[in-house]
Amino acid sequence: MKSVIITVGDELLIGQVVNTNAAFIAEKLTPAGADIIRIVTVPDDEPDIYNSLNECFKLADLIILTGGLGPTHDDVTRKAVCKYFNTEPVPSEEARQYVLRFLQQRNYPWTESADDQIMIPRGAKIIPNKHGTAPGELFETDGKCLIVLPGVPYEMESMIEDFVLPYVKTKAHGRVILQRTLRTTGIAEAMLARRLGDILELLGGEKLAFLPSPTGVRLRITVSGNERTVCEEKLQRIEERIRSRAENFIYGTEKEELEEVLGRLLRERNLKIAVAESCTGGLIANKLTNVPGSSLYFESAVVAYSNRSKTEILKVPEELIRSRGAVSSEVASRMALSVREISAADIGISTTGIAGPSGGSPPEKPVGLVWIGYSDVKGTSAVKFQFGDGRTRIKERASQAAMNIVRKKILGIE
Amino acid sequence: MKSVIITVGDELLIGQVVNTNAAFIAEKLTPAGADIIRIVTVPDDEPDIYNSLNECFKLADLIILTGGLGPTHDDVTRKAVCKYFNTEPVPSEEARQYVLRFLQQRNYPWTESADDQIMIPRGAKIIPNKHGTAPGELFETDGKCLIVLPGVPYEMESMIEDFVLPYVKTKAHGRVILQRTLRTTGIAEAMLARRLGDILELLGGEKLAFLPSPTGVRLRITVSGNERTVCEEKLQRIEERIRSRAENFIYGTEKEELEEVLGRLLRERNLKIAVAESCTGGLIANKLTNVPGSSLYFESAVVAYSNRSKTEILKVPEELIRSRGAVSSEVASRMALSVREISAADIGISTTGIAGPSGGSPPEKPVGLVWIGYSDVKGTSAVKFQFGDGRTRIKERASQAAMNIVRKKILGIE
Repeated sequence: MKSVIITVGDELLIGQVVNTNAAFIAEKLTPAGADIIRIVTVPDDEPDIYNSLNECFKLADLIILTGGLGPTHDDVTRKAVCKYFNTEPVPSEEARQYVLRFLQQRNYPWTESADDQIMIPRGAKIIPNKHGTAPGELFETDGKCLIVLPGVPYEMESMIEDFVLPYVKTKAHGRVILQRTLRTTGIAEAMLARRLGDILELLGGEKLAFLPSPTGVRLRITVSGNERTVCEEKLQRIEERIRSRAENFIYGTEKEELEEVLGRLLRERNLKIAVAESCTGGLIANKLTNVPGSSLYFESAVVAYSNRSKTEILKVPEELIRSRGAVSSEVASRMALSVREISAADIGISTTGIAGPSGGSPPEKPVGLVWIGYSDVKGTSAVKFQFGDGRTRIKERASQAAMNIVRKKILGIE
Repeated sequence: MKSVIITVGDELLIGQVVNTNAAFIAEKLTPAGADIIRIVTVPDDEPDIYNSLNECFKLADLIILTGGLGPTHDDVTRKAVCKYFNTEPVPSEEARQYVLRFLQQRNYPWTESADDQIMIPRGAKIIPNKHGTAPGELFETDGKCLIVLPGVPYEMESMIEDFVLPYVKTKAHGRVILQRTLRTTGIAEAMLARRLGDILELLGGEKLAFLPSPTGVRLRITVSGNERTVCEEKLQRIEERIRSRAENFIYGTEKEELEEVLGRLLRERNLKIAVAESCTGGLIANKLTNVPGSSLYFESAVVAYSNRSKTEILKVPEELIRSRGAVSSEVASRMALSVREISAADIGISTTGIAGPSGGSPPEKPVGLVWIGYSDVKGTSAVKFQFGDGRTRIKERASQAAMNIVRKKILGIE
C-alpha cells in the first residue's frame, strides 16, 4: 500500500524540533505493510496543507497527516482537509463524548476550545484520542484513505498503536516486508562493498542499504513479497551470504551496540575488565557503563591524561615515556598491563594517542594516531591505528576499535 | 529566499533513522535568511529524486538535497541530478585532488570507488568535503540553485557551515533575523518560566522558545525586522531582562557546553582538576576531554566502579563503605578528596549513586539517588541529588550537576 506521511508544523521547518513523529510512524507502519514512499513537512498554513494533499494523493493510496489539530494551533489542518474533501465541520456527538470523558477524568472544565475540538468534518470517522482533546479523523473515498492525527507525540503514538496499525494491517492484506540489520566495525564502506562482491547477484532483487557512522557501517537487508515463509527464507539466505563474505567484521544485529555484545561475552565467560585511557578520555568506560548490569564485569578505569598520572597511578616508568614518547607501543602496552594488575582484572585495555586538533607532529605522530594496548594472562601487546581527524570522532573510533580488539581476543578471532 | 530541503534515503522512510539532517540544515539556514517552506524525504530511487526536484523547483529558488552520494550501489542521487540538468558526469581534476588528499591523510589506497567519486556532473561547482570522499555539488541556472551534499551527518554539517551558510547569507539580502540562545542548567522548565514572569511583556512581540534536554533548558530568543541595528538593540534588551531574572542558572550561550565554560574557567585561573567517578562511569572525564586543550587542566580520572577499586585505587576505607554504604555523603567526600590528592590537582570532584535499572533500595536509596563530592584546598563536602530514572539520563544529569558545582565554586556563586 503506497503511503505518504505529511507532518504539519512551522517548528519543524525552522529546525527547532526534530521530526521524530515521522520516524515513529514509518517504523511502525512499514512492517505492517505500508510502503512509505515520501515524507513531507509543510507549514501551519491552509493552502500549503491543501496543496500537499493534492500532490501526495497522486502518488499514494494512504496519507497519514499529523499536526495542526490542537487547541492552540487553531484549525488550519481541519480547514484544509475540509476544503480538500469539499465538506464542512459539524458538531459530533461521538467526539463530544470522548472529549467530555477525557476532561472529566482529569477534573478539567468544559471550555470554548472543547467546543471547537468536537467540530468534525462531515463524512469523517472519529479516531479516539486517549491522551488529549483533539480526536483523529479518518476519510475513505475512492480507494484513497486519509488519516489525520494530532502532532503531540504521545497522543499520536497511542493512536497509531491502537487504531492505525490494525487498520493498515487489514488494508495491506498479505504484503510482507522483512528487515534485518547487520552491524560491522573496523572496515570502511567501500572496502565492505568490495568484500560483498556482486551485490545485485547476492540480493536477487531484494534491497541492501549501507549505513555508515564513525563507529562502523550497518548493513540493512529488506525483503518483500506476498508469503511470509518465502520472505523469511530469502532473508536468511541473503544474511548467510553476507555473513560468509563480511565474516568477523560483523559484531551484532539490529540496535545492538558493541559494548552490549562485549558485555555479554565478558559476562558469559566470567571475565572482569579494566581500562586505562589517555586519548579516549573516559569514553570507553562511559560506553561500557552505559550497559545495565555492567558492574558485574567492569572493574575500573583510569583516565591518565597527564604524564604524571601515567607514572603515578599507572606506574608507567618515566624513562619509558621519555625515551619512547607517551604515544607509543611500549607505553600503551604498559598501561594495559598496569591497569589490569592494579584492578585485579582479567583483561586490561588501553589507549594513548593524539586526539587533536593540536599536539600532532607529522609525519611520525600526526593527529589521529592512536596506540591501543591489550593485556591478559597470556600476554600483552599493542596495535597502531590512524583515525583521521576530528577530536570526538577520533575518540569514538578509538573506543570502538579498543572494544573490538577485546571482542576478537575473547572469541579467538584474528 | 524560498527554500526546500530534500533528504534522500530509504532508512528515513522506514523510520530506522530520525531525520536530524533536515533539522540541522533548517536550524542553520533559517537565521541566515532561507525561508524553508517544505522538507521532503524520498527513497534511494532515481525517478523519485528526479520528480521531487521537478516539483520542488516549482515552489522554491533554492533546494538543499542530501544523501545518496556515497560509493555504494544504492547511491543514485548523482544520476537523478544529471538527468534533471540534462548533463553527464565527467572526471574532475579538482575533485581528484580533494579525494586524493583525503585518502593520503588516512593512508588509504586509491580504489575503484574513488574513481566514481570524482565523476562530477558537467556544469556543477564542487563543494569540498573535509571529512569524506564524496564532494558536494552546486548548480546555478536561471536564478534557481541546487546544492547537493552527502547524507553522512558530520560530512554534511561541516559543508553547511563552511560553504552553504555564507552562500545563503549572500543571496538572502534584506530581511534580518537574529537569534540568541542562553543555556541554563539546574532548573526545571516550569520553574524557569515562572522566574521569567510575564513572558509576553518581556518579549514585546518577539519570540522565545524553551528547549529542554536532560542537561538543562536552552532559551532561544528570535528577533526579526528590517533594520539590523533595531533588531540588535531589541535582542540585547530581551537578553538583559532574561539574564536579570534567570541569573546564575545561565552558564553559557549558543552551542557552548558546560564543559567548555568550565574548561575556560579552569584555564584562566590555572587550576587543575581530577575526577573520581562511580555511577557516571567516565562520562564526566569524557565530557571534559571532549574540549580541545583540556590536557592543560584535566589531570586524571579514576572510574571506581567496584568497591574494590574504591578502596584500592582511591583509598576509601573499607569500614566507611561498610558502615555508610558506597552511595553516601561520606564516601562521595572521601572519593573527591582522594582523587585530588592522588592526582596532585587543585580540585577533586566525585560521583557515587544508583544509575539503575536495578540496585535501588527505596525509600532511602532509590534509583536516581546520587551524591556528588567536591574537594579543594579550602575543604571537602558532598551534595545529594535525585535524578529520576533512565540509566543514561541519570549519568547525563549527574555529570552536568557535578560540573556545575565546580563552576559555581570557582565563581563564588551560592
